[in-house]
Amino acid sequence: MELRRKPRVAFQGERGAFSEEAALKLLGAEIEVVPRPTFDALFAAIRESAADLLLAPVENSLAGSVHWSLDLLLESKLQITGEVVHQIAHHLIGLPGATLETLQAVESHPVALAQCERFFREHPRIKRMVAEDTAGSVRAVIARGDPSHAAIAARRAAELYGGKILREHLEDHRENFTRFWLLAPEAERSAAADKLSLVAELAHKPGSLHRALGVFARRGIDLLKIESRPIPGQPWEYRFYLDLKARPEDPAMKAALEEFGQNADRVYILGWYPSAAGADAATSTPTSARS
Amino acid sequence: MELRRKPRVAFQGERGAFSEEAALKLLGAEIEVVPRPTFDALFAAIRESAADLLLAPVENSLAGSVHWSLDLLLESKLQITGEVVHQIAHHLIGLPGATLETLQAVESHPVALAQCERFFREHPRIKRMVAEDTAGSVRAVIARGDPSHAAIAARRAAELYGGKILREHLEDHRENFTRFWLLAPEAERSAAADKLSLVAELAHKPGSLHRALGVFARRGIDLLKIESRPIPGQPWEYRFYLDLKARPEDPAMKAALEEFGQNADRVYILGWYPSAAGADAATSTPTSARS
Repeated sequence: MELRRKPRVAFQGERGAFSEEAALKLLGAEIEVVPRPTFDALFAAIRESAADLLLAPVENSLAGSVHWSLDLLLESKLQITGEVVHQIAHHLIGLPGATLETLQAVESHPVALAQCERFFREHPRIKRMVAEDTAGSVRAVIARGDPSHAAIAARRAAELYGGKILREHLEDHRENFTRFWLLAPEAERSAAADKLSLVAELAHKPGSLHRALGVFARRGIDLLKIESRPIPGQPWEYRFYLDLKARPEDPAMKAALEEFGQNADRVYILGWYPSAAGADAATSTPTSARS
Repeated sequence: MELRRKPRVAFQGERGAFSEEAALKLLGAEIEVVPRPTFDALFAAIRESAADLLLAPVENSLAGSVHWSLDLLLESKLQITGEVVHQIAHHLIGLPGATLETLQAVESHPVALAQCERFFREHPRIKRMVAEDTAGSVRAVIARGDPSHAAIAARRAAELYGGKILREHLEDHRENFTRFWLLAPEAERSAAADKLSLVAELAHKPGSLHRALGVFARRGIDLLKIESRPIPGQPWEYRFYLDLKARPEDPAMKAALEEFGQNADRVYILGWYPSAAGADAATSTPTSARS
């Protein structure tokens, strides 16, 4: 008898969070979602046998990289096996009987409130209230049953907790996207893998990054992203995070990686994976970085 | 009669914020501090004649770059004239009569609460409460006068609002530093300027970043930091932020910048400025990035 279970996918946040939406978008509805309260708890989920896969945010188009995820990934033995780019659309969610006109207070995480400044400027009589979580603020508003209170969160939170969307897209900037990595304990490499993420520590002298990038540039391999990152515990000592566009079986890429390794103090391969669907559409996803 | 006024320095946050501590550290006590509620309000402060200078956070050793500041700086006509690196030390601040043993709740901004996880694990009976601001939560705790409540914030907040430090250094990671830039409307370049920050948009083809960096590497000019950043409104279209170590009058640097400009679509000079005091001490400040 074969026992087949839905894959369990952990994310950081409460049920109904943007991360849960992203997990369903990447993997479809046939998963079991596992909410985890903190990034530490998220990264411990596989080790504690609470999940088979993790979905971790790595970059937001407004706020930049989520360095907590990058650092925890480096400490872990997990590998990237996929990515998804998800729009952060903030909706105003209240009780089924609520109306925008009779609202007195709106609660959410301070980052979500800050991304909806225009709404609060246009509705000065509505009080802003901070909460620990976006989706959790919807759950709390519905549970308390007071129609003069609403929350700001993902559409998924309205569906899960029985809320009504009073107004869509409260966010000041529509082009607010978060990129997530799907992490797994073993490197089951997809046949569609066309992207590599790695971290390098280079010798401390002028020109070493230039020489290291030359390994890829000379072979026409495209650098999709680069970032220098302080090493935790060694402030302002830097590592370099690189995303490269290439297939693992490409002989030029193999040669480049071998030469790159000879010129770096340390190289960590974070994973080979298929780039996000629509990754060449300028409206929502990576197009134009370069090496 | 000469009218000399203290320089007015704007920062984001309430009186007593970490940014206010950083301003005093960089400029001494002979300034007038101007608190501004949001980043937008901060960057408007000089235009609105509310301040002469701005202090804006640009990078934190745990959380990474503060992209909001970088993007707003690019939109502004301001120039960097100095920088300071400041330790983010979270202290537990209560009423003069309060004790750690009788505390029931501790409030602060969710990011501060998240950076003090260990304290809350060790004191499970103390309730975490979210607030919009670190220093503001001290002000509120003192104003309410309930000794069973305390807040987490900078030492400066305790001094300003008459709070008592119940415990120092609640942060999980001591090496939590934020780098701030001092911004001014005119580029009054200091004679001690030894650092350049710039932004470049490069042609979209493999190898263009490698070639651009070669301009500095060939001349032995040290790259202190590099980061690719999505262009706001054009998600995943990238600009490159570079910090370089060199004096403006250095002929090699002049030649490098001229050649760099010929190879880039656009170059924005953000400013020449003296690098932060102690910037070569590995414990707190930039040491080891490279070009």
